[in-house]
Amino acid sequence: MKQITVGIIGAGRIGKVHAQSIALNIPGAKIKTIADVYMNDETITWAKSLGIENTTKDYLDIVNDKDIEVVLICSSTNTHAQFTMEVAKAGKNVFCEKPLDPSIEKIKETLKVVEDSGIKFQIGFNRRFDHNFKAVKQAVLNGKVGDPHIIRITSRDPEPPNPEYVKVSGGMFMDMTIHDFDMARFLSGSEVEEVYVQGAVLVDPEIGKAGDIDTAVITLKFKSGAIGVIDNSRKAVYGYDQRAEVFGSGGAVETSNDGLSTAVISTSSGIGSEKPLFFFLERYMDSFVQEMKEFFNSIGNDTDTAVGLIDALRPVQIAKAAGESLKSGLPVKVVY
Amino acid sequence: MKQITVGIIGAGRIGKVHAQSIALNIPGAKIKTIADVYMNDETITWAKSLGIENTTKDYLDIVNDKDIEVVLICSSTNTHAQFTMEVAKAGKNVFCEKPLDPSIEKIKETLKVVEDSGIKFQIGFNRRFDHNFKAVKQAVLNGKVGDPHIIRITSRDPEPPNPEYVKVSGGMFMDMTIHDFDMARFLSGSEVEEVYVQGAVLVDPEIGKAGDIDTAVITLKFKSGAIGVIDNSRKAVYGYDQRAEVFGSGGAVETSNDGLSTAVISTSSGIGSEKPLFFFLERYMDSFVQEMKEFFNSIGNDTDTAVGLIDALRPVQIAKAAGESLKSGLPVKVVY
Amino acid sequence: MKQITVGIIGAGRIGKVHAQSIALNIPGAKIKTIADVYMNDETITWAKSLGIENTTKDYLDIVNDKDIEVVLICSSTNTHAQFTMEVAKAGKNVFCEKPLDPSIEKIKETLKVVEDSGIKFQIGFNRRFDHNFKAVKQAVLNGKVGDPHIIRITSRDPEPPNPEYVKVSGGMFMDMTIHDFDMARFLSGSEVEEVYVQGAVLVDPEIGKAGDIDTAVITLKFKSGAIGVIDNSRKAVYGYDQRAEVFGSGGAVETSNDGLSTAVISTSSGIGSEKPLFFFLERYMDSFVQEMKEFFNSIGNDTDTAVGLIDALRPVQIAKAAGESLKSGLPVKVVY
Amino acid sequence: MKQITVGIIGAGRIGKVHAQSIALNIPGAKIKTIADVYMNDETITWAKSLGIENTTKDYLDIVNDKDIEVVLICSSTNTHAQFTMEVAKAGKNVFCEKPLDPSIEKIKETLKVVEDSGIKFQIGFNRRFDHNFKAVKQAVLNGKVGDPHIIRITSRDPEPPNPEYVKVSGGMFMDMTIHDFDMARFLSGSEVEEVYVQGAVLVDPEIGKAGDIDTAVITLKFKSGAIGVIDNSRKAVYGYDQRAEVFGSGGAVETSNDGLSTAVISTSSGIGSEKPLFFFLERYMDSFVQEMKEFFNSIGNDTDTAVGLIDALRPVQIAKAAGESLKSGLPVKVVY
Repeated sequence: MKQITVGIIGAGRIGKVHAQSIALNIPGAKIKTIADVYMNDETITWAKSLGIENTTKDYLDIVNDKDIEVVLICSSTNTHAQFTMEVAKAGKNVFCEKPLDPSIEKIKETLKVVEDSGIKFQIGFNRRFDHNFKAVKQAVLNGKVGDPHIIRITSRDPEPPNPEYVKVSGGMFMDMTIHDFDMARFLSGSEVEEVYVQGAVLVDPEIGKAGDIDTAVITLKFKSGAIGVIDNSRKAVYGYDQRAEVFGSGGAVETSNDGLSTAVISTSSGIGSEKPLFFFLERYMDSFVQEMKEFFNSIGNDTDTAVGLIDALRPVQIAKAAGESLKSGLPVKVVY
Repeated sequence: MKQITVGIIGAGRIGKVHAQSIALNIPGAKIKTIADVYMNDETITWAKSLGIENTTKDYLDIVNDKDIEVVLICSSTNTHAQFTMEVAKAGKNVFCEKPLDPSIEKIKETLKVVEDSGIKFQIGFNRRFDHNFKAVKQAVLNGKVGDPHIIRITSRDPEPPNPEYVKVSGGMFMDMTIHDFDMARFLSGSEVEEVYVQGAVLVDPEIGKAGDIDTAVITLKFKSGAIGVIDNSRKAVYGYDQRAEVFGSGGAVETSNDGLSTAVISTSSGIGSEKPLFFFLERYMDSFVQEMKEFFNSIGNDTDTAVGLIDALRPVQIAKAAGESLKSGLPVKVVY
Repeated sequence: MKQITVGIIGAGRIGKVHAQSIALNIPGAKIKTIADVYMNDETITWAKSLGIENTTKDYLDIVNDKDIEVVLICSSTNTHAQFTMEVAKAGKNVFCEKPLDPSIEKIKETLKVVEDSGIKFQIGFNRRFDHNFKAVKQAVLNGKVGDPHIIRITSRDPEPPNPEYVKVSGGMFMDMTIHDFDMARFLSGSEVEEVYVQGAVLVDPEIGKAGDIDTAVITLKFKSGAIGVIDNSRKAVYGYDQRAEVFGSGGAVETSNDGLSTAVISTSSGIGSEKPLFFFLERYMDSFVQEMKEFFNSIGNDTDTAVGLIDALRPVQIAKAAGESLKSGLPVKVVY
Repeated sequence: MKQITVGIIGAGRIGKVHAQSIALNIPGAKIKTIADVYMNDETITWAKSLGIENTTKDYLDIVNDKDIEVVLICSSTNTHAQFTMEVAKAGKNVFCEKPLDPSIEKIKETLKVVEDSGIKFQIGFNRRFDHNFKAVKQAVLNGKVGDPHIIRITSRDPEPPNPEYVKVSGGMFMDMTIHDFDMARFLSGSEVEEVYVQGAVLVDPEIGKAGDIDTAVITLKFKSGAIGVIDNSRKAVYGYDQRAEVFGSGGAVETSNDGLSTAVISTSSGIGSEKPLFFFLERYMDSFVQEMKEFFNSIGNDTDTAVGLIDALRPVQIAKAAGESLKSGLPVKVVY
């Protein structure tokens, strides 16, 4: 198999995760260059230890490098669309972190460019590759639950974001629930037609002052007739709570959280078991590896990517509708 | 302890359940008379086997019996309010099956009569006495979950009702979800201010033709600021699915279903465990016994009943709002 | 159905449990007389509340009562064999608490008398009727686990007996493990050929001084070729630990403990669930009811009792062998 | 941190696992050479893909290489002791797969050489590094279970070995139970004084013809007074069954198996969950990585290895005693 040469734009937390996944798990891929506007010594040392040849502050060193066939865009959200378009125009395949952009217009423009370029494109909805959610999807695909009637997603963060971050985050729906909107589409196999939000500020009043909410129950009406419900909280003190259930005409499939071990301790004060894993990187590490594997497989085998163009657009459209529902207090149709 | 003399109006399924609970578990109570408009030989034999002295077709034999201090009203729904008022006016304590009446006006009128009479009154929301739901409530009361933020109730019947029954049932909200509305109030410790329903006919088109739905996700906004969500289905093929979760600032408490045993069978084709109990009488039998015990305790000790006047009214008011939300497709404020 | 008239000898804890099971759950049976050498006012009041006509200090009032067809022997262990023989000779059916006698000779003599009398006899190994252990047995009978290879029984008491009791108890094997020996035979469907004990005094040195042990691992070799293992402790601080597993050529079936509810509480300090039920009467209440039901069924339908003569003998023989193994430190063949 | 140069003797399955763990997870270590008497093209290609410089058929190329500081011995069991001695004499640190040798004399001789050489030595009992067993050990160390009274280990393979292999395997105790003997020492924190085996051929008569057993219950008496019990089967049709429990004066800690996901599927035919992982490499992968990390840490930090000299000897001594017990049918003291 010929080697695939890779460039990574953005050497923050998620950029590093992907770099490591590729270096350690994808023998057919070689990271040539990593770019970051804030490139520093620590990152340079880290890059060397992974065998990455070049580090640069200028992403154009990647865009313009003829050797590089695949680019991962892990920079800040406001650059995703622009970089995707530039890379696509340069004829390189793109893996882009979510969201592609907060603006639907911008996403559509980007998707047009990507489509015209004929490159492969994958958006970073890693949870689809998680062992638990994949098992749910598989049960649905295998017909174990019949026609889906109710899709329930519980998605609760272990710690609220800092209110300063909240101000620039695009709001909870765009920052956090966006994953759940993608999951809802993935598990239901259907598109969302209407959204209704009941939201509140119950975790931290500062989040409210920053113009956002921290708790929500979101009802989704799917084209298929199924009904979805997402419950979100910015703070589950017991850990990162990530569960889903699909209930249908033939039964139900449901996941519980992953803990560090299966150990159960029984004492006179009670029966205790492991809390859900706390940190998203720990909880979802296998999914990050898996999403890279599948992305490089689709390049190697010239097949469609698992999470493509439309998957970059739809969750943002749903998030927009959710935001409007929160404001108006009314159900809102998703505009496609 | 002096003996409490009891009359039961209605010898259908639930009347018999209560008669048995009293006969077998409440030594201080003695059922003197059971009345049913359709009294038949089978019921007479059954009554004798339980040591019940009199059987009659005329409920007035109970209302007018000076010996009888306590009356259980287990007749058809349309008689609940009238019988309650007559019994209350006769100065006897009342346990009445839910709902007291589908009409809010009628309930209010009844409650007025009950209040004026000074008798004890308990409404038959048995699930509050269930070992699982009681444990959830207890955890909330003990502060284990802090301030409740999200209350989730999953309530799915094992078999849909027959469409003929659907026509006279008052609709799913009044017939089935009413228990969940009560549970939502019980677990949250707060009143519901607003209701939004996303409903569908996914189980049986005949239910739709009968003017009802069989699947719903219902969002509740509580006065406390908490958010509730109920998911209902008329048909869970794997059994009677009855679960609840309260999530709050300090953690979460959640129940799973009861099975017949804890046995787990591991074979080459998978790991299997017991399905949830299928039949509501089997699932909730301990709660029926417990609600009788607590009712007779509150009479014996002259204390407030556990589920009183307001608890008969509120779930019906919420059910009405839910019905309106279903019709309009909009969130609806509950009118109190 | 004609009424079966019952006498109960022994009004201690277990005698009362059976009386209540019969009074509340077996409409076709009527307890006429209960006898106890220590009959007192409290017991007399209790008997009246259950509708038992006669209370007496003299068990012969039962043996000699022509009306009485069925006698429950719930008196102290040293009287079981004698009373069983007297009652059998009087032509009445016997339910006798375990063990029938600590002496194998005495048991054999008793069984001879019982056999000659042609009465029905059931010995009080209630755990066979427990919902969990029944489910294990059912899985074995249904062929779910294939040929049993390994039978594992965990049986741990919540609290050690008082050392005074230990002295007269006949030792842990006769007092506690005897139930597990019965369970081993029940679940394996085979007889025990050889026993090896590794025992210790780890819970309370006073138990050691009283000549007994409080902790043991007991290996059983079954005639079928299967291997059994029982682990016992007199003190599980977290509750009454009662579990079993049958592993075989086709898979395994295994039970966990029963708790008060399925509630799981998640907080920052961990995930907690209910402890196993602590008290044996609470844990095994349904089995006591069920064993009475099946006993009266076998009388009513003239069928074999579920736990018969040989089941009264075998566990005592195994317990003897276990005692010898503990003394010698060697495996010991069970003498039949 | 300076780079540690590594050689690996043996490029079979486990040699490759360790090579990969080091290459992908231990940035400070570099594998220079891998040797295998059956070195072939496939292995050479694989080695290149991992960046291993040299491949050779001659292990002496490693022993005599001055650059190499650390040697992993993953060759066939009969070479472990000899290679360990040669490598130790060459002053290189050794990680050796278990067992060091079937002969206790040979082990002792080897350990003497290792001790004299002053090198670091770790034996390959990987399960100590498994997330579940580590959690059990941690609970014991934290005093959560008080003094250990009973240690239970369930260890069942998913598939029996081929009878040809059985003949050269050294028997089930040396081949399979040896891990459980190590685990028993690890979890109890005590040495085994006496062993009693009840063994049988229940899975495959061919295994019996090859002079071995395939099913066993093994009782261990620990120096601490605690009692241990291991149950083994060569064939659990539902997967690789690997569980442990420590029960003590303060409570119990217990693990269940790992499955591929937490998904639970509920249908009309039952409630199903994931089978235990089937393949030992899949089940124990994290432990293989972790054991390498800790080995290289102890070299880097010049600390004691986690599983040292005595840990290579004791399980073999216990296995010998177990073999004698199986033959004699009697408990056997372990000779130290």
